[in-house]
Amino acid sequence: MIPFPKPDVDQFFRTYSITTFTISKDEKKLIFSSNINGKQNLWAIDFPNQFPYLFAQVDQQCSFLKVDHDNRYVLAGFDHDGDENYQIYALPFEGGKPQPLLVGEKTDKFFFTNSSKDGERIYYMTSKENPQFLNLHRYDLKTNKDVLLEKGEGAPIYMEGLAPDESSYVIVNTLANTYSLGYVVVNGEKRLLTPTKDEVHTVSNPVYTDENTVYFVTNYGDEFSYIASYNILNGEFLPVQKIPSESVKILKWNQFLNTFYFVTEKGVTDQLYSYSISSREVTKLEVPTDIIEQLTIAESGSIYVLGRSATIPVNIFRLVEGTWEQVTTNHVLGITSDQMVEPEVIIYKSFDEMEIEALYFKAKSDLANGYTIFWPHGGPQAAERKSFRAMFQCFLNRGYSIFAPNFRGSTGYGASFEKLVEGDWGEGPRLDCVHGIQWLFEQNISSPDKLFVVGGSYGGYMALLLAGRHADLFKATVDIFGVSNLFTFLNSVPEHWKPMMKRWLGDAVEDRERLEKDSPITYLDTMVNPMLVIQGANDPRVVKDESDQIVAALEKNGVEVEYLVLDDEGHGFSKKHNEIKVYETMLEFLEKHL
Amino acid sequence: MIPFPKPDVDQFFRTYSITTFTISKDEKKLIFSSNINGKQNLWAIDFPNQFPYLFAQVDQQCSFLKVDHDNRYVLAGFDHDGDENYQIYALPFEGGKPQPLLVGEKTDKFFFTNSSKDGERIYYMTSKENPQFLNLHRYDLKTNKDVLLEKGEGAPIYMEGLAPDESSYVIVNTLANTYSLGYVVVNGEKRLLTPTKDEVHTVSNPVYTDENTVYFVTNYGDEFSYIASYNILNGEFLPVQKIPSESVKILKWNQFLNTFYFVTEKGVTDQLYSYSISSREVTKLEVPTDIIEQLTIAESGSIYVLGRSATIPVNIFRLVEGTWEQVTTNHVLGITSDQMVEPEVIIYKSFDEMEIEALYFKAKSDLANGYTIFWPHGGPQAAERKSFRAMFQCFLNRGYSIFAPNFRGSTGYGASFEKLVEGDWGEGPRLDCVHGIQWLFEQNISSPDKLFVVGGSYGGYMALLLAGRHADLFKATVDIFGVSNLFTFLNSVPEHWKPMMKRWLGDAVEDRERLEKDSPITYLDTMVNPMLVIQGANDPRVVKDESDQIVAALEKNGVEVEYLVLDDEGHGFSKKHNEIKVYETMLEFLEKHL
Repeated sequence: MIPFPKPDVDQFFRTYSITTFTISKDEKKLIFSSNINGKQNLWAIDFPNQFPYLFAQVDQQCSFLKVDHDNRYVLAGFDHDGDENYQIYALPFEGGKPQPLLVGEKTDKFFFTNSSKDGERIYYMTSKENPQFLNLHRYDLKTNKDVLLEKGEGAPIYMEGLAPDESSYVIVNTLANTYSLGYVVVNGEKRLLTPTKDEVHTVSNPVYTDENTVYFVTNYGDEFSYIASYNILNGEFLPVQKIPSESVKILKWNQFLNTFYFVTEKGVTDQLYSYSISSREVTKLEVPTDIIEQLTIAESGSIYVLGRSATIPVNIFRLVEGTWEQVTTNHVLGITSDQMVEPEVIIYKSFDEMEIEALYFKAKSDLANGYTIFWPHGGPQAAERKSFRAMFQCFLNRGYSIFAPNFRGSTGYGASFEKLVEGDWGEGPRLDCVHGIQWLFEQNISSPDKLFVVGGSYGGYMALLLAGRHADLFKATVDIFGVSNLFTFLNSVPEHWKPMMKRWLGDAVEDRERLEKDSPITYLDTMVNPMLVIQGANDPRVVKDESDQIVAALEKNGVEVEYLVLDDEGHGFSKKHNEIKVYETMLEFLEKHL
Repeated sequence: MIPFPKPDVDQFFRTYSITTFTISKDEKKLIFSSNINGKQNLWAIDFPNQFPYLFAQVDQQCSFLKVDHDNRYVLAGFDHDGDENYQIYALPFEGGKPQPLLVGEKTDKFFFTNSSKDGERIYYMTSKENPQFLNLHRYDLKTNKDVLLEKGEGAPIYMEGLAPDESSYVIVNTLANTYSLGYVVVNGEKRLLTPTKDEVHTVSNPVYTDENTVYFVTNYGDEFSYIASYNILNGEFLPVQKIPSESVKILKWNQFLNTFYFVTEKGVTDQLYSYSISSREVTKLEVPTDIIEQLTIAESGSIYVLGRSATIPVNIFRLVEGTWEQVTTNHVLGITSDQMVEPEVIIYKSFDEMEIEALYFKAKSDLANGYTIFWPHGGPQAAERKSFRAMFQCFLNRGYSIFAPNFRGSTGYGASFEKLVEGDWGEGPRLDCVHGIQWLFEQNISSPDKLFVVGGSYGGYMALLLAGRHADLFKATVDIFGVSNLFTFLNSVPEHWKPMMKRWLGDAVEDRERLEKDSPITYLDTMVNPMLVIQGANDPRVVKDESDQIVAALEKNGVEVEYLVLDDEGHGFSKKHNEIKVYETMLEFLEKHL
């Protein structure tokens, strides 16, 4: 009766983020971090009423949340305008003003790892006095006594598990994204959880089922991560549970049900399983989303997940008495899931016949404008998955199709595949992208005058590299805090990244020639397509200097370049108004070059 | 274990407003206007999940909400940055972008009044072509045909009731706040609902129980408003239901239960009753708040209220199967109701022995700073009631006690009392205030060096007047968009207010002497106390010129004056950041003069 126009593009920006949540032991209070009110703040729900209330107004990103077992306090980590220097604050159980608890200089990091069963001792990592490798401390809330337990050496350490009686703990030594070693520390003595450290593998998610047994996730001797156990008494390592071609990424334990719950990563989706220790039975559980970002198992056995799918923005769900219930109602303003686009999963062959999986989001025929956006994901040891991106659905609604390849180095396809980007940022992955673009041309999906390349972080680096070396394949580039100069990047990453940079990217001296070849800035003279560069002023990972360099150089060469700097952001957009500004700027830029 | 400091003052600002709500016929969707995300926007709840989602991002105040009976659309009224020129928009049932439906120039007003049972015809008032008295139109959504039904003449008209078969409707002619006449219009013929128009009385809330019977609220022949009926067939007027010393303010009808639900006003609190037509039985219903701002009765008989108490911020509640359930969870950040102050109800005698009721909020002894804020309310035909004000609870937390008298002219104490301010803005009410101040001194609650006067709108006018004529009684003044010059004010009020200004305030020519005597600007030379003036740049009721005048004059006289102009606000604060700025400025000003 009243004609309503098609949804407006800005409606897609009206989703919000939910980055982390926690639930009180009695499951009456759920606290989460979200930018519902425009900036990142804490909100809480007191069940059964699901209407959230403001729990803390901080306007800062939150790294973790933890409710004391006896509901005496809540712990949270906040940074400063996206600088990722998280520090630890305490809040009253009723909410209010965060009080600094474990903090230092603005540049120091404090990461909460565990607390004792009685909630009186907090274990945390800090970059203070050891910015490269981190130190492990224990802080006693009753006596305010702080003890240094472990100094990181050679590679960053991170405590990830604590014995119920605090008689031992597990630390993980991260040598690279694909190489981390787990140690159980008993009375100061460090014992490797896996048989040997010589083989490159990873260890994560240590969980104590009792004082003497640690379960954990590793890909020791395998392409995919599985559940293994370590017996502290006899030093025995045992593989416990593997799921073929799937990598375990989250492992949780419920002592009352004697059951593990774990999430696996399989290409572009996640799966949830339970594993009963007594029956040794694995059960696949239905989940309401394709991607699971956080999994919390309550004592009661209720399952809480933070998850999303390509057409479902991030939400908290819970499984209570066999039924999944959506707790939060985050959705695109006035737009239902079926008005959005589910991606197709495509496989194409690269230069060396290697199979590359990609997501192809095809704009609905009544909206399609004939143009395609090629999106190399960030990471690079990450993947583009069936996960809601306001940007994607917004661009699709404007008529752009989107193609996102999981080039070599992406996670979810086995350890060997993931390692292929290590020491090779600019050759193999780039050629995978080039072959993805050629596939688009062969399929008549796109052509050089109908293609844009848009990418952020490593994806921004790849966009820049493609712009410099394959300008003839597409029309224009959008670089969102991408690395332009690998030498500058090596110097500017956070201190605790440096130990793993050599394996990951290379050494400024030894690998000089390759780094030069793989630095976008080397190809300035052939970077002739119009470009939009977006940068967060406080970005600790890709510092502003990176983007300044490329913009200055292109301007000098007379290339059409636009530069948008966000003064109060880091590596990502935590503030709604900045997010909208970025997307509007990007769309305007693209429209200009149709 | 972790010591937490007392709540911070800014926590009190972290409540939000809920100004209006509507519920779909099936009670599955509740839509409300709130500044949860910083500015005034529409939010919705799809029961049973009470987690709200953004329904429309408009950043504007909303005057009404109406869901179509068949869930085909939602209607809403929005103004522009507080200018109160509301116009009518339509939205999809799923939410989205409001589409202009009945709009005009930016200065035109469009008020939704009723829609036909089938939702296809909309009745609305507009200031377009009749800014002083308004016109009534009917708009057909199917044919887009618009019909002028009634032209306002002599006094503003407002349609308030529509016969189920649209064979007649009721319009109310507003001559003053205390004088309004109701007419049923049958085939163009206007019949008075009350026996005569000669006696000053009010008519409101007309409700048709069938084509021929109109129930309504009037104080015809009485001090307090009651329920009456009018029979269209025989013209009979009948008083139906009176509650001694209480004024009916809202009347709702449930045809399926053959029952009325009504809210009465009794001094500083409201009451809720049901009245069954068949049994003629009146039942008092428990309500979760002292003040009821909106009452909606669903077809099922479920009761929805928007209400608040002194220590409960505005919230939506519903009575389902005998139990009140709080739908929204608006509360002061980290502060429970018992940490706030419930006012005492005080009665003192004024200059002429008239009894004046006042609310006395006594700062908790561990927080009290010995100072008292004297708060004359706005209106003036309104009242200070047991209603949450973030400002009050915040000031109380900072240590200030607050005294708020319902001086003559206030509502809730009978029609005669309310009329006492008409044609006497500056004498009787002022002396009531002076005697209230003296009562504070007699009770040793305060003294001239421990007292501040703070007021907004008419309360700002009173603050200015007290500053000019009784500067010796207190220390400093805060004027929030108060009238300073009654002549300027007479000229600057909205066109449709002008017809009633003569009775309410006076005539610029006939009452020249009195208006001069009662204008704060007359007493500039004795206005010697420090003053803070706060003004919204778009205020349509007290235009900025009013405040400019007083500030300029005081500056000229060398009085300490601070001036805060809010560029994007009208008569009130719709935006959280402005609200916080105002309160912070006020507190700083007060602290400075302790």
